Amino acid sequence: MFAARNRHVQPFRVMVLMERARQLEREGRSIVHFEVGEPDFSTAEPIVTAGQQALADGHTGYTEALGIPELRARIAKFYRDQWEIELDPARIVVTSGASGALILACALLADPGDGWLMTDPGYPCNRSFLALVNAQAQLVPVGSDSGYQMSAEIAAECWQDNTHGLMLASPSNPTGAMLRGRDIEALSNLAVERGASIVLDEIYQGLTYGGGSGHCGTALTLSGAANLYVINSFSKYFGMTGWRLGWMVIPEDAVPPVSRLAQNLFIAPPSISQYAALAAFSAEALAEHERRRDIFETRRDLLVSGLGRLGLRVALVPEGAFYLYVDIGAWGMNSDDFCSRLLEDYGVAVTPGTDFGTHQSDCNVRFAFTTGEDQIRRGLERIGDALTDWGFS
Amino acid sequence: MFAARNRHVQPFRVMVLMERARQLEREGRSIVHFEVGEPDFSTAEPIVTAGQQALADGHTGYTEALGIPELRARIAKFYRDQWEIELDPARIVVTSGASGALILACALLADPGDGWLMTDPGYPCNRSFLALVNAQAQLVPVGSDSGYQMSAEIAAECWQDNTHGLMLASPSNPTGAMLRGRDIEALSNLAVERGASIVLDEIYQGLTYGGGSGHCGTALTLSGAANLYVINSFSKYFGMTGWRLGWMVIPEDAVPPVSRLAQNLFIAPPSISQYAALAAFSAEALAEHERRRDIFETRRDLLVSGLGRLGLRVALVPEGAFYLYVDIGAWGMNSDDFCSRLLEDYGVAVTPGTDFGTHQSDCNVRFAFTTGEDQIRRGLERIGDALTDWGFS
Repeated sequence: MFAARNRHVQPFRVMVLMERARQLEREGRSIVHFEVGEPDFSTAEPIVTAGQQALADGHTGYTEALGIPELRARIAKFYRDQWEIELDPARIVVTSGASGALILACALLADPGDGWLMTDPGYPCNRSFLALVNAQAQLVPVGSDSGYQMSAEIAAECWQDNTHGLMLASPSNPTGAMLRGRDIEALSNLAVERGASIVLDEIYQGLTYGGGSGHCGTALTLSGAANLYVINSFSKYFGMTGWRLGWMVIPEDAVPPVSRLAQNLFIAPPSISQYAALAAFSAEALAEHERRRDIFETRRDLLVSGLGRLGLRVALVPEGAFYLYVDIGAWGMNSDDFCSRLLEDYGVAVTPGTDFGTHQSDCNVRFAFTTGEDQIRRGLERIGDALTDWGFS
Repeated sequence: MFAARNRHVQPFRVMVLMERARQLEREGRSIVHFEVGEPDFSTAEPIVTAGQQALADGHTGYTEALGIPELRARIAKFYRDQWEIELDPARIVVTSGASGALILACALLADPGDGWLMTDPGYPCNRSFLALVNAQAQLVPVGSDSGYQMSAEIAAECWQDNTHGLMLASPSNPTGAMLRGRDIEALSNLAVERGASIVLDEIYQGLTYGGGSGHCGTALTLSGAANLYVINSFSKYFGMTGWRLGWMVIPEDAVPPVSRLAQNLFIAPPSISQYAALAAFSAEALAEHERRRDIFETRRDLLVSGLGRLGLRVALVPEGAFYLYVDIGAWGMNSDDFCSRLLEDYGVAVTPGTDFGTHQSDCNVRFAFTTGEDQIRRGLERIGDALTDWGFS
């Protein structure tokens, strides 16, 4: 009775887990939240004030389908200021969250039955965006040997007759792994060679931390390829999750069809969010975003060292985003059981790897460092207690 | 290179027309706007204030995928207060505009190759939502003989082997035509009989005017059918277009799969919009919505009588929405030419029927009465001048 694609759209285990965590809290239990994939900061003051001003100014109507020209120009300026790259604002499409951009990209590029390569583990919704348009996710297992990222070699090896594109992410969720510059170039060349497109998720851009070999800028500085679609968001670095605003940089020849799709499928992105987002680039707001980035870095270091002391293997010290992907294989239970017992018995909520794919997902869990240092310390203590009780230390 | 569905996603001629109208205005021309499908009122004060308060309260994060429980309950209460119908709030899904609801409905219900019946003329985007999921719009030509609406007889006649559902709208765009109660019941029975679903757009609900035979409430009072999906919006009656917020009432067994789809494809509807929408049901806001409805009714009457005096045939005096669908067949030019000449030579912007389908679309145009009475009078004068110049009066 429901369309066949619904079989491929999975619920997130983390939703059940979050609901259970909230229930335990209502019952008076203290819970440490490592499961939440959202910054714990509310939106920075200058942006909130701009949102209130947009309301006072009556900016409550539909805007242009591809976003207000001021915002598209402001995003172009951001690329110029940050990475000295000149982008025609006409190629910048403002969307209803990165989710809206992914719907547009799949609608534009994916025919039924087309295959798209993506890493496993990876952002689980990408499989659903493809299922929406009846295309297929072709999961490419990646592990510590390839730094949890795709490379041109891996892609070429996994390429199938029906492969039409690659969905990449840098930094990635759930591992925080980043693509290296030379890999982006090689992947881009491979895709051009084979007539495929690349949809690259850069939504954690800006939330990157020193010391790694990943390419911290944007792939747009490396590849002017006419097959590259770069997706970004105001949700993460800019702290605007609930506002549902993102953007996509698309090749010039894609502008007319994307414009038609956006008119038809979305009418326009939220107006108040767009006017508020103009303030996300103010010096004051950017200083606040950078301050928060520093906080995330401190938390990352605290969590990595704490888990290391407990003997938990951090598969990869993340160079970006706010997640740690942790191998729990040594502890004798699968990730669902691990997460369930940790929550029920020790009040620590962690996301099982099974939310992100099937490759080694039973022996990995994701920690989000979207909670404060005191909570992180408390969580580490409780995990220490659990490991002791379970006989592992 | 782009997916095949893009051939079925048409640009709106009205967008080109609006752009041209704006250009003429920049050149100093005065333009009367009958083309805009959006109320000319900004959002009512109590809602704007609630939006500002939501920002002050820090409601800037993700919400539940199906919307905040308070809003789902408040919508249920609205159905109870207005139409004495009891709906479980669990069946009410808050969406990113009615557009988001239509994406969810198509993702849930339409397999590739499935056909969905809909009226021609009708809301053009519906064809694109089906194209997104590789299903087909099956256009059913309707005219003045059937009151520009679908009926069970017409549907049965046009039914094809691959027909899996009906997309209906009441009041409809572009005609303002409403379904009669007995037609809703007969259509519902037909769909149940044939194992099909009904997606019914009620986004102009509340914007209805006295004197017609249409069913002014909601189909939910008539049909408890397990195959009925009713779509609504905060954009029209509630005046919240740019906020991108709608809702859908779905059968109980559809809640789990819709919840999965919403999590995956949207994460959540805009948070600030949701908190603000709670105020859209306050006595003060409802009084304002009703005041605006009265204004639309006055405008409708002014425009209908004015066009009638000019000899233009109003195909149907609309019982709802804010559109007039007008037959211009007697004036010797097709609707695209008519609209173009009216704009260029007389400064009146009207939407050609070709935006809404192919059936008699060459000889119909849509007037939106989303502009004030003075403008409507000015527009009527100019159309009178045009008809004189063209030798028709």
